Amino acid sequence: MITGYSKRKILNDPIYGFIKFPFEIIYQIMDHPWFQRLRRIKQTGLTSLVYPGANHSRFQHSLGAMHLMQEAIKVLRIKGHSINKEEERGALIAIMLHDIGHGPFSHSLENSIVDKLSHEDLSEIFMQFFNEIFRNELDLALEIFKDKYSKKFLHQLVSSQLDVDRLDYLKRDSFYTGVVEGTVNADRIISMLELAEGELAVESKGIYSVEQFIIARRLMYWQVYLHKAVIASEYLLVSILKRAKFLVETGVKVWSTPSLSFFLTNQLEKKDFNEQKVLQRFSELDDYDVLASIKVWASHKDKVLSYLAKSIINRSLGAIELRDESFSEEDIDKYRKKTMQILGFTRDEVDYVVINDFTFNLAYNPNLGRINILNKKGITKDISLASDQLNISVLSNPVTKSFLIYPKEIR
Amino acid sequence: MITGYSKRKILNDPIYGFIKFPFEIIYQIMDHPWFQRLRRIKQTGLTSLVYPGANHSRFQHSLGAMHLMQEAIKVLRIKGHSINKEEERGALIAIMLHDIGHGPFSHSLENSIVDKLSHEDLSEIFMQFFNEIFRNELDLALEIFKDKYSKKFLHQLVSSQLDVDRLDYLKRDSFYTGVVEGTVNADRIISMLELAEGELAVESKGIYSVEQFIIARRLMYWQVYLHKAVIASEYLLVSILKRAKFLVETGVKVWSTPSLSFFLTNQLEKKDFNEQKVLQRFSELDDYDVLASIKVWASHKDKVLSYLAKSIINRSLGAIELRDESFSEEDIDKYRKKTMQILGFTRDEVDYVVINDFTFNLAYNPNLGRINILNKKGITKDISLASDQLNISVLSNPVTKSFLIYPKEIR
Amino acid sequence: MITGYSKRKILNDPIYGFIKFPFEIIYQIMDHPWFQRLRRIKQTGLTSLVYPGANHSRFQHSLGAMHLMQEAIKVLRIKGHSINKEEERGALIAIMLHDIGHGPFSHSLENSIVDKLSHEDLSEIFMQFFNEIFRNELDLALEIFKDKYSKKFLHQLVSSQLDVDRLDYLKRDSFYTGVVEGTVNADRIISMLELAEGELAVESKGIYSVEQFIIARRLMYWQVYLHKAVIASEYLLVSILKRAKFLVETGVKVWSTPSLSFFLTNQLEKKDFNEQKVLQRFSELDDYDVLASIKVWASHKDKVLSYLAKSIINRSLGAIELRDESFSEEDIDKYRKKTMQILGFTRDEVDYVVINDFTFNLAYNPNLGRINILNKKGITKDISLASDQLNISVLSNPVTKSFLIYPKEIR
Amino acid sequence: MITGYSKRKILNDPIYGFIKFPFEIIYQIMDHPWFQRLRRIKQTGLTSLVYPGANHSRFQHSLGAMHLMQEAIKVLRIKGHSINKEEERGALIAIMLHDIGHGPFSHSLENSIVDKLSHEDLSEIFMQFFNEIFRNELDLALEIFKDKYSKKFLHQLVSSQLDVDRLDYLKRDSFYTGVVEGTVNADRIISMLELAEGELAVESKGIYSVEQFIIARRLMYWQVYLHKAVIASEYLLVSILKRAKFLVETGVKVWSTPSLSFFLTNQLEKKDFNEQKVLQRFSELDDYDVLASIKVWASHKDKVLSYLAKSIINRSLGAIELRDESFSEEDIDKYRKKTMQILGFTRDEVDYVVINDFTFNLAYNPNLGRINILNKKGITKDISLASDQLNISVLSNPVTKSFLIYPKEIR
Repeated sequence: MITGYSKRKILNDPIYGFIKFPFEIIYQIMDHPWFQRLRRIKQTGLTSLVYPGANHSRFQHSLGAMHLMQEAIKVLRIKGHSINKEEERGALIAIMLHDIGHGPFSHSLENSIVDKLSHEDLSEIFMQFFNEIFRNELDLALEIFKDKYSKKFLHQLVSSQLDVDRLDYLKRDSFYTGVVEGTVNADRIISMLELAEGELAVESKGIYSVEQFIIARRLMYWQVYLHKAVIASEYLLVSILKRAKFLVETGVKVWSTPSLSFFLTNQLEKKDFNEQKVLQRFSELDDYDVLASIKVWASHKDKVLSYLAKSIINRSLGAIELRDESFSEEDIDKYRKKTMQILGFTRDEVDYVVINDFTFNLAYNPNLGRINILNKKGITKDISLASDQLNISVLSNPVTKSFLIYPKEIR
Repeated sequence: MITGYSKRKILNDPIYGFIKFPFEIIYQIMDHPWFQRLRRIKQTGLTSLVYPGANHSRFQHSLGAMHLMQEAIKVLRIKGHSINKEEERGALIAIMLHDIGHGPFSHSLENSIVDKLSHEDLSEIFMQFFNEIFRNELDLALEIFKDKYSKKFLHQLVSSQLDVDRLDYLKRDSFYTGVVEGTVNADRIISMLELAEGELAVESKGIYSVEQFIIARRLMYWQVYLHKAVIASEYLLVSILKRAKFLVETGVKVWSTPSLSFFLTNQLEKKDFNEQKVLQRFSELDDYDVLASIKVWASHKDKVLSYLAKSIINRSLGAIELRDESFSEEDIDKYRKKTMQILGFTRDEVDYVVINDFTFNLAYNPNLGRINILNKKGITKDISLASDQLNISVLSNPVTKSFLIYPKEIR
Repeated sequence: MITGYSKRKILNDPIYGFIKFPFEIIYQIMDHPWFQRLRRIKQTGLTSLVYPGANHSRFQHSLGAMHLMQEAIKVLRIKGHSINKEEERGALIAIMLHDIGHGPFSHSLENSIVDKLSHEDLSEIFMQFFNEIFRNELDLALEIFKDKYSKKFLHQLVSSQLDVDRLDYLKRDSFYTGVVEGTVNADRIISMLELAEGELAVESKGIYSVEQFIIARRLMYWQVYLHKAVIASEYLLVSILKRAKFLVETGVKVWSTPSLSFFLTNQLEKKDFNEQKVLQRFSELDDYDVLASIKVWASHKDKVLSYLAKSIINRSLGAIELRDESFSEEDIDKYRKKTMQILGFTRDEVDYVVINDFTFNLAYNPNLGRINILNKKGITKDISLASDQLNISVLSNPVTKSFLIYPKEIR
Repeated sequence: MITGYSKRKILNDPIYGFIKFPFEIIYQIMDHPWFQRLRRIKQTGLTSLVYPGANHSRFQHSLGAMHLMQEAIKVLRIKGHSINKEEERGALIAIMLHDIGHGPFSHSLENSIVDKLSHEDLSEIFMQFFNEIFRNELDLALEIFKDKYSKKFLHQLVSSQLDVDRLDYLKRDSFYTGVVEGTVNADRIISMLELAEGELAVESKGIYSVEQFIIARRLMYWQVYLHKAVIASEYLLVSILKRAKFLVETGVKVWSTPSLSFFLTNQLEKKDFNEQKVLQRFSELDDYDVLASIKVWASHKDKVLSYLAKSIINRSLGAIELRDESFSEEDIDKYRKKTMQILGFTRDEVDYVVINDFTFNLAYNPNLGRINILNKKGITKDISLASDQLNISVLSNPVTKSFLIYPKEIR
C-alpha cells in the first residue's frame, strides 16, 4: 500500500491548473496499477486520427471529473446543504472510478471481441475488487455509484444527464480537439447547482448555460464523436478485431501481445469477469496491445487482415457516405461487387470492408432522467419545459444516420 | 495626413494576437480623430456594471472585425474566387467603419436625446465625409457598405446574419465578459465560407458551427445583452438623459460637458448630421461626456435627476422583474403609488423610475437574409431548412419579455 | 447599508472564472461608492493608447487580488498553518483596499496636481474612514496593512516582493495587453507558498516559477509599463495638468469638471486628506473627469494647452528617444530651439513639450524585503542566493534610461 | 501516391486553430506512413508520467513548426525580403521532416539499443529516401536542412538557437504540461524577425521577448525536461532496454514485438541505416512496441527485468536525488549494498537500479550560433551583448547536476 501521501500532492492539468487529492485513499487509488493503466487508454480512441490533438487519456478525464466533483460539493455546501466527509469521499471515489471499466478503444472492442460487455458493468466489478483491497472503504462509493444511497443527488452528480462526467469530457475533448465551440462553462453550471427535493437541479438563471451545454454536446457528437472519418476508423477497427478473431478460431496463427491474445482466444461473458484472474487480464489490456498487434498484422499473409491493418496504421481510411435515408440492398451490392472485383476479395471477405450500419444521437434524453430547472419559487421543471425557446423536445428526437463504408480504391 | 506608414505596423490584440494593416489607408483611417474616438466608447456600454471585465472599446471591435475580414478574403481566394486588391481594400474599409456612427451608450442615447437616429445611418454619413478627406478612395467601400456593389458577398461579409461583425463581437464580448460558453469558432466558420451564385454560403460540413453560432448568439443575448441588470442600467440611463433634457428645456440649469450640452439643448434630426459642423460635434461626444456629467448630476438639486444619477454612479440599480406575460396597468400602478409614497415623487416624476416595457430577441431572422448552407452537389439551403434537428424555425420566433423596473427601495 | 448579501454572490472574471465573497463585509465594501469608483479608473492608465486591449479597471484588479488571497490562505491552511476566520477576513479586506487610494492616471496625477501624495498613504486614510463606517470591523485589516500584526506573513501576502497584488496585476495586465509572455503562474506559486519562522516563503521546488515571475515582471516593465509610447503619454499628461494648473493660477479661465476643478484650484497636502470633505472630493475624481476636461481643452485658446490636449485625445503622441546615456544640455537645447521655431512656443512653453527625464526599473529589490526560498531541510535563502544560475544579483541593479520627448513635428 | 489533395485541406490544432498545407507535396509527405508513424511517438516521451497532459505527438509538433515557418516567411516577405515559391516549399519540407528521424523515447533509445545514432542523422537519411520517392523534389529542402543553401537564414529558421522548432515545442510542451509560465510569444518573435547580411536577426524592440524565450526555455528544462521524476523514468527505461538486450545476447528468451525484436537482436551502426530495409524496420518502431513489450516483461522470470518493467508500467519510479556536487563512490556503494541486501540483486544487477550520472543544461549556447539583435542603425549584436541587464553570459554557463537514482524500497 502506498504511504507517505499528503494532502499537499497536486497534479498539473492543462485545463484546471492543478488537481488536488483531499483524501488519502483518492491518491492511493490513483496509484494503483488498475488506475495507472488508464494512462494508456486514450479518452477518445481513434479520434486522434481526425483531430491530432486528441491524445488525452482516460486517466486525465477521471481525475478531471473528480476535480469537478470537489467543486460541485463546495457549491452545494455553501448553499446550505449538508454533505459530510464520508459522503464527499464516497462521491469522489465513485466518480474517479466511473470509467475504470473502459477497455482500449472500447466502443470498437465491445462490438468485436468482448461482446455485450458494458464498461459500466466492468467499472462496478472493479470497484468491488477495490473495496476488498481497501477493506470496505468503498462501501459508500459503491452505493452512490449504484444509486442505492439515500442522497440521490450524489449519484446524479456521478451519472445523469448533467453530471460532472459530461461536464469534464465535453470541456476536455473540446480543448484537445481544438473544437473550441464545443466547450461548456462547467464553472458556471456548477455554481448554479441546487437541490430540490433531494434531487439535483439548476437555478433558473443558469438555464441558458444548460441549453448551451445540450447544444455543445450535440455539436461534439456530430463534429467529433460521430465525425465521418471517426466512424470509419472505429468500424475499421471492429473489422480488424473480428477478422483476427475469426482467423484465430479457424486455426490461423495470428501474432498478438499476450493480453490481446487472451481475449482473441477466449470467448468471455460478463460473469467471467467476476473472477479476479479474468479481470486482471482485462486490466492488462490497453491501447498498446491493440496497436502493437495491428502494426504486425499489416504484414500478415491474410490479405483482409493486412489490408485493414495497413489502413489504420497508415491512416488510409475507407470512404464513407453518411445520410438521412438508408441505403438499399442494391446500392450496397454494387459496392460489394466492385470491391470484390478491384480488391479481389471473396463475398465473405467483402463484409469486412463494405459496411452498412447506422448511428444515432440524442442530444437530450428525458427518459434517462430529467435536468431539473429550479425557479425562484422553488418549483422545478424539466429543461425541456422550462426552456422558452430552444425546442428541447426536438432535441429529444433521436437523429439517425445511415452510413456506408467502402474501400477508397473503388471510389 | 499621416505618412510614414509601413505595412510592418501591427497592433496587439488579446484575442487574435496581432492585427495587421495591409493597406496604408487603413492605418490612416485608424489614426483619424473620428476613429480614435472609438477608443472612448465601450463596445457594450453599461454591461460592465454587470460583467466588470467588459471594458473593451468599439475601437477594438472595429479592428477585430477588419482582421476577420482579411481572413475571410484569404479563404475565398484560396478556394478560387477572385477578389482584387481594390475590392479587398474596399471591404476592409467598409468593415472598419461599419460602427463609426455609434455614439456613447448608443442604445440609450438613441432612445433619449438623439431620437430615431440609427448608428448605421451615421456610419454612412461618416464614411461619406471620410471619402472627401481621402479623395474618393472610399467609393468602393461605400458601394459595398450600401450593398450597391456587384459582388454582393462582400456586403454580406460586412453585414448579414453571418458577417465578420457578429463573429468578432460574439467572440470578443464572450472573452471580455468571461461568459466563455458564448464563444464562437470564427476560425472554423471562416474557413468553411464559400460562394454560391455570388452570395456568401457555408460549406455543409460547417453546419454544426453555424448552428452553434446561432445558439451562442442567443445565449449572449439573454445572458449578457439583455441581462436583467443590464436592461435596468440602460433604461436608467435613458431616464437620466430624458430628465436632463427635460430640465434643460424647462430652463433649469444643468451642468454638462460642452459636447453633451450641445445635444441636450439642440433637437436634432437625421438630416442635420449631413452638416459637417453637427457631425463634428457628434464626433466629440463619447462615454466620458456622459459619465462625467452624470457624476455631477448626482448632486443636482432636482431630486429625480440626482436620484437617477446616484443609482448609476454607485451601481445601485433599480429592481427589475422580467417575465413572459405583460404587466397589468393595475400592477404597475401599485408600484407607482408605492414609489410616490416612499420616495416622494410626483406622478410625472415616477415615470422616470417605474418603467414598463418589453424586450425581444430573435436568434435567427430569416427575413434579414438567409444563412446559406452549400452542400457538395452545389445546392444551397437556408440554415433553417438544412439543419436536421435544431429547430431553427423555432429560433426564428421572436421571444418577447415584459419587464418592470422600479426603485429597489420599494422592494 | 447594503443588506441581503449572501455567500452565493459571485462575480464573473475573465481570468479566474468566478470570484467569491466569503464574508458579508467584503461584499458591502465592494458596494460602497468609494470602491465602485474604481470601476472608472483604468488599471494601467494611458497604456491603452499603446495596447488597445488594456481597458481593465482597478476594480477588477482589486477583486482579483482578493481572490488570490483566498487561494493563498487555503494553501497555507492545508499545509497546517492556522489562520482563523478573523485573520482571513482582515487579510481579504486589506488586499481589497490596498489600491483604493489610487486616483485616475495616478502616476501622472501625483507628478502634477497632487504632489507628493502616495496612493499607499491615501489607501490607509480610506481604510480608516471605512473602519469608522463599519464600526471598527477593519481594525485587524489595518494592522495587517500597516504591518503591525504579529502574523507578519499576512502583511507579506498583501505587500512584499511576491505578494498577491503583483501576482494578479502581472497576470491581468499580460492578459489584457496581449503580451502573453509576461504571464505568471499564480496558481503554481501560490501552491508552493509556505511559512518559515513566521515569514512567507516559497518551497524550493517552486524556485523556477519565482525566477520566471521576476523575469516576467521585468519584461512587463520594459514592454508595457515603460514602453516608449506609454512614457510619452504619461509625461504628456503631466504637462497638460501642469499647464492647466498654471493657467488657473495665473487667472486664465480653464473649463473643467467640478471634481477636477477642485484639485486644480486648491493646493493640497497630505494632511488635508484626513478631512473627510477633501477625501470625499478625491473619491469623486476619476478617469472621466480628466479625459472629459482634456477633450474640452483641445480647443482652449492657450496654444500650449490645446496642443497637448489634442495630442492625447487624437493619439498623436510626441516622439521619444530612450537610451542608456543621458542627453547633453546642448542636445536638448537643439530640440528646444527647433520646437520654438516650428511651433512658435516661447522658452517657458517649450518645457511642456520637450522633456528630458530618466526612468528606471529594478527587477528585484532585495532592500524591499527578500523572497525566501525554503529548502527541504527547512532552511531559507533569499532567491538571489538560492537561484543557481539566473543572476538575480544582476537583476537587482537598477536599469536607468534617459529619454527625451519632443514634438513629432520637429522630427 | 495520394491524389485529390487540395489547398483547402486544413487540420485542427488546439494551439494555432488550423494548420494549412500550401503545397500539395506537404500534404503528400504528411500522408506517408513514415510521417504518419509520428502520431505514435510522444513528443516528450515519458514526461506524461509526471505531467499527465503531455500526451502530444511528434506529428503535432512537426506540423506546428511547419505552420510557424509559414508565418515567418510571410513576415520576411512583408519586410521586403524575396523568398520564392521553391524556397518556401523547401523550407516547409525541411522543417516538416526535421524530426522524422526520432525513434520512440529517443533519448532513452539512443542510450541503450541504437547507440550513437542521432535523430538528426536519421532525419537526413529519411529525407534522402523521400527525395527518391518524390523524384528530387526535396533537393532544395535537403540543401536548406544541411545548411548548404545560399540563403543561410532559411536553415536558421529550421535549426538555430531561435528557430521555429524551438518556438513550437516550447509553446506546445508548455500548453500540454500545463506549465503555462514556460510559454513563449512565438507570434511576437516571428513578427520581429529580420535579416541582416543574409542571416536571421530579431529587431531590437523584440529583445525582451527573446530574453523571455531564453528564460522560458530554461524553466522548461528544469521544470519539465529535466524534472527529477522524468530523469528517473528515462534512466529506468534505459536500464530496461539494456537489460532486455543483455538477456537476448546471453540467450534468454525475451518476448517482444517484431520491430523491437529486430533492434534488440541486431547491433546496428549509423551506416546500416542507409539500407532501405533497415530504415524501413526503424520506421516501424514506435512507442507501442516499447510499451507493449515492457508490459509483458513485467512478468518475465528475470527479476531485474520484471522489477524495472513493473516500475514503469505502474508508475512506481525509483527515488532520485539531484544536487550540485557529485556523489562519492562511498556514498553510491552504500546504496548499492542496501539494494543488494533488500532486493536480493547481485553486484552486476544492481547497476540497473542504482544509477549515478549527471545532467546539464545550457540556457543559451553562443557556440551554436548567435541570436542576432538588429538595432535601428542596422547593426547586429549577439543577444548576450545586446541585453542590457539579463546576464546572458551567466546563462551561457552550463549548469551541471549530479543525480543518484535508487530503488524506492531502500529509501
